[in-house]
Amino acid sequence: MLWSGWGDPALARELPEQVRALLRDFLGVRAPDVPAVGLESVRLPPVALPGPLLGALAEVVGPAYVLTSHEARVRHTRGKSTPDLLRMRAGDGSAAPDAVVLPGSHEEVAELLRLCSAERVAVVPFGGGTSVVGGLTASGSGFAGVIALDLGRLDRLRSVDLESLVAAFEPGVRAPEAERLLAPYGLTLGHFPQSFEYATLGGFAAARSSGQASAGYGRFDDMVVGLTVATPTGTLDLGRAPKSAAGPDLRQLMLGSEGAFGVITSLRLRVRRAPGERRYEGWRFGTFAEGTAAVRALAQEGPLPAVLRLSDETETMIGLAKPDTIGSGGAGCLLIAGYESPPASTAKSPSPGLPASASGGVPPVDGQAAPGWGSVTARRSGAAAVLARMGGEPLGTEPGEAWERGRYSAPYLRDSLLAAGATVETLETAGFWANLPRLYDAVRLALAGALGSPLVMCHISHVYESGASLYFTVVTAQEGDPVGQWERAKEAVNAAIVEAGGTITHHHGVGRDHRDAYAAELGPVGVSILQAIKARLDPAGILNPGALIPPPTT
Amino acid sequence: MLWSGWGDPALARELPEQVRALLRDFLGVRAPDVPAVGLESVRLPPVALPGPLLGALAEVVGPAYVLTSHEARVRHTRGKSTPDLLRMRAGDGSAAPDAVVLPGSHEEVAELLRLCSAERVAVVPFGGGTSVVGGLTASGSGFAGVIALDLGRLDRLRSVDLESLVAAFEPGVRAPEAERLLAPYGLTLGHFPQSFEYATLGGFAAARSSGQASAGYGRFDDMVVGLTVATPTGTLDLGRAPKSAAGPDLRQLMLGSEGAFGVITSLRLRVRRAPGERRYEGWRFGTFAEGTAAVRALAQEGPLPAVLRLSDETETMIGLAKPDTIGSGGAGCLLIAGYESPPASTAKSPSPGLPASASGGVPPVDGQAAPGWGSVTARRSGAAAVLARMGGEPLGTEPGEAWERGRYSAPYLRDSLLAAGATVETLETAGFWANLPRLYDAVRLALAGALGSPLVMCHISHVYESGASLYFTVVTAQEGDPVGQWERAKEAVNAAIVEAGGTITHHHGVGRDHRDAYAAELGPVGVSILQAIKARLDPAGILNPGALIPPPTT
Repeated sequence: MLWSGWGDPALARELPEQVRALLRDFLGVRAPDVPAVGLESVRLPPVALPGPLLGALAEVVGPAYVLTSHEARVRHTRGKSTPDLLRMRAGDGSAAPDAVVLPGSHEEVAELLRLCSAERVAVVPFGGGTSVVGGLTASGSGFAGVIALDLGRLDRLRSVDLESLVAAFEPGVRAPEAERLLAPYGLTLGHFPQSFEYATLGGFAAARSSGQASAGYGRFDDMVVGLTVATPTGTLDLGRAPKSAAGPDLRQLMLGSEGAFGVITSLRLRVRRAPGERRYEGWRFGTFAEGTAAVRALAQEGPLPAVLRLSDETETMIGLAKPDTIGSGGAGCLLIAGYESPPASTAKSPSPGLPASASGGVPPVDGQAAPGWGSVTARRSGAAAVLARMGGEPLGTEPGEAWERGRYSAPYLRDSLLAAGATVETLETAGFWANLPRLYDAVRLALAGALGSPLVMCHISHVYESGASLYFTVVTAQEGDPVGQWERAKEAVNAAIVEAGGTITHHHGVGRDHRDAYAAELGPVGVSILQAIKARLDPAGILNPGALIPPPTT
Repeated sequence: MLWSGWGDPALARELPEQVRALLRDFLGVRAPDVPAVGLESVRLPPVALPGPLLGALAEVVGPAYVLTSHEARVRHTRGKSTPDLLRMRAGDGSAAPDAVVLPGSHEEVAELLRLCSAERVAVVPFGGGTSVVGGLTASGSGFAGVIALDLGRLDRLRSVDLESLVAAFEPGVRAPEAERLLAPYGLTLGHFPQSFEYATLGGFAAARSSGQASAGYGRFDDMVVGLTVATPTGTLDLGRAPKSAAGPDLRQLMLGSEGAFGVITSLRLRVRRAPGERRYEGWRFGTFAEGTAAVRALAQEGPLPAVLRLSDETETMIGLAKPDTIGSGGAGCLLIAGYESPPASTAKSPSPGLPASASGGVPPVDGQAAPGWGSVTARRSGAAAVLARMGGEPLGTEPGEAWERGRYSAPYLRDSLLAAGATVETLETAGFWANLPRLYDAVRLALAGALGSPLVMCHISHVYESGASLYFTVVTAQEGDPVGQWERAKEAVNAAIVEAGGTITHHHGVGRDHRDAYAAELGPVGVSILQAIKARLDPAGILNPGALIPPPTT
């Protein structure tokens, strides 16, 4: 992963000429005065942790797994929000941890938490490092130091229960590796967020991720049937059944807790049979309102495709849904519908020697995937009838395939835009269907007020019976202080979302960037619940301090 | 509601002769020595609350809504578990509240909680009074008295959002009234638990109810998209979107909180288009294991019926799934599959004058109900193919219709059995598919160990991709102390469920009867989370003391 941007530097994208023209002519973007620094030039604070404490950490995990090198610290500084990248490109490593610690087991995580509680060392759990909400930027004030707790060594598939269709993973498994580990069983998670290439399963759970195929496979929090969490005061082991009436669902308290209550050390995930058949296609609607009515009809009447994404007029015109051909999108609103179904033949038997806790194989499949999916043909025909009835014009498979090719490329594009002098960032919210138009207008108005005439694009990509998400992409010319410029805009948008009755985040999480708006959304009683849980589980307050939970005002 | 039993006394059922023979010949049941007492003979403790405190309560809600009459207190004593009924039939009213208080608004609930906190009055929220787990039996020790907070006056449908398909209700609405209020909009909740005739929406949420059509409509906690909760320290208002990544889902903390954290004063519920077409039918499987594999295939591959219930060999033989013809069930295992679909024509427009917060009507319907349901014919043909492939023999609609006619009659039958000298009680658990056989055996073994040779029947009636519930019905001859006899059996079963890795309850809730087993299931860290939340929201500990949460051991 590029330390100052996204992904594999070999995949860096040159900006197409249409985009350069657009930036220049419509947004007045000029190349920035200062190019990005090299990794070796990032300015880091000295390591604050005293030698004996570093030695104590090394006693827990072994000396090879306590890193204080310049590169290790830089690579664990901040996440991947645009302000994070702007700061790193400018050489600002002030938020670096003192050390990176890599535990090799649940027991080592638990022991580290006890040690760090006793010694007042702040602990920032680190999975893929892909937070875009300041989730990795702990407040070290009042602590002996800050460690990044990198979960990368906890990277195993522990068991597969083929009867219950549940797989147990360690938290540091990256999403592509999870799919690779499940493939021999003919299984998939079906979780494909834009951070797919780097993010980890533990991070998905801790930040309530939602993937591009959420309409078909559900949100990540829907997939979690069990969790083990190490906290400074002991271990929680949750999930004896898919659903229960045994009190509040404490899994739902740990999902979204962003490392502030504990460290997830094991996840039991509901898995599905892997699809053998896929069809992604495009539809065109006249307006965003008409397209929204169509995706609402699918969400409420069914059948739902596995992937469902509707771009507004601006996003369609820019062609952001098809990064291959950006700048040549066309009129109206583009909808992408993707259908997936497992092969009609019986799923593969796992190869001998693979870990499987249950007897019996994957049950036979009759062209069915998840409950009621049916074949691609059957599901597509049902959904197409609804889309056509709601005014959609079918565009065939070309737009769907173009979207699929580019589904992970937007973050690479962002790096090129930042280098060219444009600020580009995304933000998201969700609400009930009846409230979406108000939310949509409120966010656009706030961005226009803060940024002049930015380019604002939007899509709906996660739908529910009672509502949906709105995902915005903003492009504007960088001012002299691009971080401050964006932070002012973000503050205005946060306030607008809270005021318009939406939730402050649909799948990015809270971190530090959404913390105050989150507190406003929850209200004082809700905040006091989180503070009470935090005080009980983490009395020394070492876990990701400053993220998620506002400190008590005393 | 009969104070000492279930439902409308006019619907009391005579025991069929086959049942009497079964009780006599197989279980050795003899008529009890002591018949049930009359309501006026129930022994109540004197009202402990001093007059000025009763006056202060009356100042909040009005004097007409503070009841201390013998009948009002008897009718709010305990719930509807078999030990509850055995105690009431014996005239034991020792658990009666001192007064019944009926607030008329959220504000009155909030004011009552402040007053009762200041004066140390225990508060037991009371909806339909149908708890079967001791959820209404507060520990009054250390308090000035105990009030039953009857939510019966909060019985309105507040709004219907036809675009989002969300209806806002007050908590005291009983389930049949909710359906009656939604009918003019062409909508339904689709929530039909056995307590349907009496239980309230607030109670469903507080105890995580699950209905007989959960395969089609989901559990009640799945339906809740928003909640308002009055607590002694302030009001929580949760749910700005169907789903969010804004931290832990605090709705899931209030769902299942059983009145121990606060009082639900408003619920926003996802609603569905009401079905116009229904088909309930029966299938026979050779063994419970074969039938279980078939319902698992439906849960994992789809399509799911709206109602899915599989009886084990004993329940099938006794014919409990068809109370009309009990005692003549037949061999193998009976499966009931019920399909529902809205009418193919456009749903009704709401009549003028009905409250509706949104513009626009119910969207047009193309023979579709919930996402992907399709028509009854289409869904049935998909499910029937799976059931036949898995070895099922179709029995036509007669068994399905018989089940539907008797779906709410089991509690009436229980009253007759109690009067005849048999103890009959139900209990339930849930687990992952691979663990169900172990759970099934563990529960049966524990019951046999505690009760000699009881009649133990079981069914699966709630399925998920990764697991299912097991619901047991037990019949045994009453001993001299039938309450103590059952309590010993229950303790053995609770321990067996915890030991076998199941959850202590799938949809009955925790109350006092499951509290210690629940603590064992959660572990000490989980319990400490609940205690911390309780201490923050309810520092005086007045809310349903003794239920759900074990008191801190200091």
